[in-house]
Amino acid sequence: MTTSMAASHSVGKLAKDVIFGASAACKEAIKKYGSDKVTNATIGSIMNDDGTIACIPVVEHLLRNLPIGDLISYAPISGVPAYLDAVTDVVFGQYRPEGYTAAVATAGGTGALHHTIWNYTEQGDSVLTANWYWGPYNMLCREVGRQLETFELFDAQKQFNLADFSNKFTQILSKQDSILVILNTPAHNPTGYSLSDADWQGVLDICKEAAKKTQKKITLLVDVAYIDFAGEATETRRFMKNFSNLPDNILTVFAFSMSKGYTVYGQRCGAMVGLSASSAVIQEFADINKYTSRATWSNINHGAMEVLIAIHRDQKLAKQFRQEQDTLYQMIKKRGAIFMEEAKACDLNALPYKAGFFLSIPSTNSAAVCDALHEDLIYAVPLKAGVRIAACAVSATKMHGIAAKIKKALEKVE
Amino acid sequence: MTTSMAASHSVGKLAKDVIFGASAACKEAIKKYGSDKVTNATIGSIMNDDGTIACIPVVEHLLRNLPIGDLISYAPISGVPAYLDAVTDVVFGQYRPEGYTAAVATAGGTGALHHTIWNYTEQGDSVLTANWYWGPYNMLCREVGRQLETFELFDAQKQFNLADFSNKFTQILSKQDSILVILNTPAHNPTGYSLSDADWQGVLDICKEAAKKTQKKITLLVDVAYIDFAGEATETRRFMKNFSNLPDNILTVFAFSMSKGYTVYGQRCGAMVGLSASSAVIQEFADINKYTSRATWSNINHGAMEVLIAIHRDQKLAKQFRQEQDTLYQMIKKRGAIFMEEAKACDLNALPYKAGFFLSIPSTNSAAVCDALHEDLIYAVPLKAGVRIAACAVSATKMHGIAAKIKKALEKVE
Repeated sequence: MTTSMAASHSVGKLAKDVIFGASAACKEAIKKYGSDKVTNATIGSIMNDDGTIACIPVVEHLLRNLPIGDLISYAPISGVPAYLDAVTDVVFGQYRPEGYTAAVATAGGTGALHHTIWNYTEQGDSVLTANWYWGPYNMLCREVGRQLETFELFDAQKQFNLADFSNKFTQILSKQDSILVILNTPAHNPTGYSLSDADWQGVLDICKEAAKKTQKKITLLVDVAYIDFAGEATETRRFMKNFSNLPDNILTVFAFSMSKGYTVYGQRCGAMVGLSASSAVIQEFADINKYTSRATWSNINHGAMEVLIAIHRDQKLAKQFRQEQDTLYQMIKKRGAIFMEEAKACDLNALPYKAGFFLSIPSTNSAAVCDALHEDLIYAVPLKAGVRIAACAVSATKMHGIAAKIKKALEKVE
Repeated sequence: MTTSMAASHSVGKLAKDVIFGASAACKEAIKKYGSDKVTNATIGSIMNDDGTIACIPVVEHLLRNLPIGDLISYAPISGVPAYLDAVTDVVFGQYRPEGYTAAVATAGGTGALHHTIWNYTEQGDSVLTANWYWGPYNMLCREVGRQLETFELFDAQKQFNLADFSNKFTQILSKQDSILVILNTPAHNPTGYSLSDADWQGVLDICKEAAKKTQKKITLLVDVAYIDFAGEATETRRFMKNFSNLPDNILTVFAFSMSKGYTVYGQRCGAMVGLSASSAVIQEFADINKYTSRATWSNINHGAMEVLIAIHRDQKLAKQFRQEQDTLYQMIKKRGAIFMEEAKACDLNALPYKAGFFLSIPSTNSAAVCDALHEDLIYAVPLKAGVRIAACAVSATKMHGIAAKIKKALEKVE
């Protein structure tokens, strides 16, 4: 009797989803106790204070009123050219680094990660990211036979741990001809940390030094999924200037997503933007990632691209969009501030949240901490390194008191 | 100087798109001569007689009026459960085969092919399809290090060439532990052929015989992208009953797409439906394909799924949908009939078109034939084995005369 038909590399794959598990438990509690009494801190989307999903009004208006051709016709494989131009502007803002660029539309930010891992790492390679990381990074690597290795994001002073980054980077590069580094910043998921200019300087100095000494290839993937909730729009893009004129053997890829910044998570639209001092490297970037798109999903949601195009070609709409987006940013900022103030007041060891959808509290026993929080009808996500709280999803009213309750749960469990 | 940053397996990939090239030449001609005078037979979408893209009215209405939560929120990784149930019903109709089934949402039909090739073939394997095939099949295989091999679709009598299928199938299986066969039917792209019940019986007998003699694994991918334009809905699904109670080591996967049947090409929504006599094989199908989704595109367009759900849970909407879809089917059928009648009248050697978006004329010099057609302002797609004409896109008025002009072009060139 045949019990498996899978190819050898696919046998036994199972997507365990801790977020889904936490969310399911929360839904049960809401059924039992009512949504007023339950705090759902598991959701990775912006929720209004009344618990409904938030949509930027101008985005909804445009999406519902697109010409039917835009809504249903195929987009070009690489994406609509005007979309790719607009995305490049949106990603860099006033700080477009010097160098050649090209963009390719992808299925959200995940698609940009998929293409980069597949096209810029060898079978069996190690990929480097921080020890606090978005779980699917690991699955994206394992799926194609790569392995994810991590450096400690923070040192004992909760500063960016450049020393450990340097160690792990050098170690991997001593064994491989190329390396892919994934950095999710600004407003990192799950900690809310943003690399400072000094942090970036440190990272890039290490990369440049390695690039000078060898012919090895270094690809930096900067996952900017949360950039629009990281602070003031111009300021959050200032770090982009650091990527100007890097050596030819350093390629930078920015993973852009409409999911959060445009509140269209389920529309599945994003892009990868490549930057290099070499025009040949950028032509190759456009060619091989287009090929991978053709051979993976064919093309990307045309309507969603047209929404972004419409916003960015019309100054009035663009202004309205920025204001409406800012309202959501301010709402999340307020929620995060409440938590961090209360964490400080009760001496809870929270990580240095700067901005964004999520904040985290270290724990070696996060599942037990989350279970203990269920007694207070608070539902959070247990990660390997700690507990994740969704500032994007918990109203200011409900946010009050969570820090103290986590403190209590931690004391009970550890 | 570094001119390539790509991983070794990705160097030199270039997606040459003959359809795009043909379409670009056509657009130039339209600019010069006006759309009235130019025939665009390159497009793979249903165009109204006036040259606008056709959208099924109830689909447009639902898509524009979805609750905002459905439109923008993330769908579950595997797809909305009600969507997967509805898709399974839609695929099988009244001829649901006996056996276990599971479905996973995918980015159109392409996504279903991607997952199946990745999860059910080994590195270096040969994948078998017909010599008349949709170009991206080859790219999907090459992208992940598989190679596409072909059998002759037709024999000298323009009948399904079971003998050549058998030869190639046996030959590949003698070298591999498993085989993936891709069959695009009914209403095959690019020929419009549909395997008859006898053709299927022949294919399945060969598979069953091979499955009995060995422990080798056989995966059959049936690409049903065009099933809704293949004939009367019940009749076109009759062949599904042949897949009941196959041996455990034959897995059948149906690649379903909303692109054509629901006229939402650019929304990128489809599904893969697995069928097996073994519950373990189907559990594995659900698990490993979910994992691949998580590690490729995360999740699929939520709004598009809700459109299909809405249609299929409401008898009135379902009836309206079937009528509106049938109007498009009748329009294409009429166009195809004009071509085939005229082909017969002028003794043009057209392939046995039964139904669907495309019909084809064999030629060993298809690029030159297409170039010659440009003199008549007719734009078609040059494939390796011949010329493809899009019945879905050319109005009845413009279809008149094309067969004779192809005949003339062939005589000129060959």
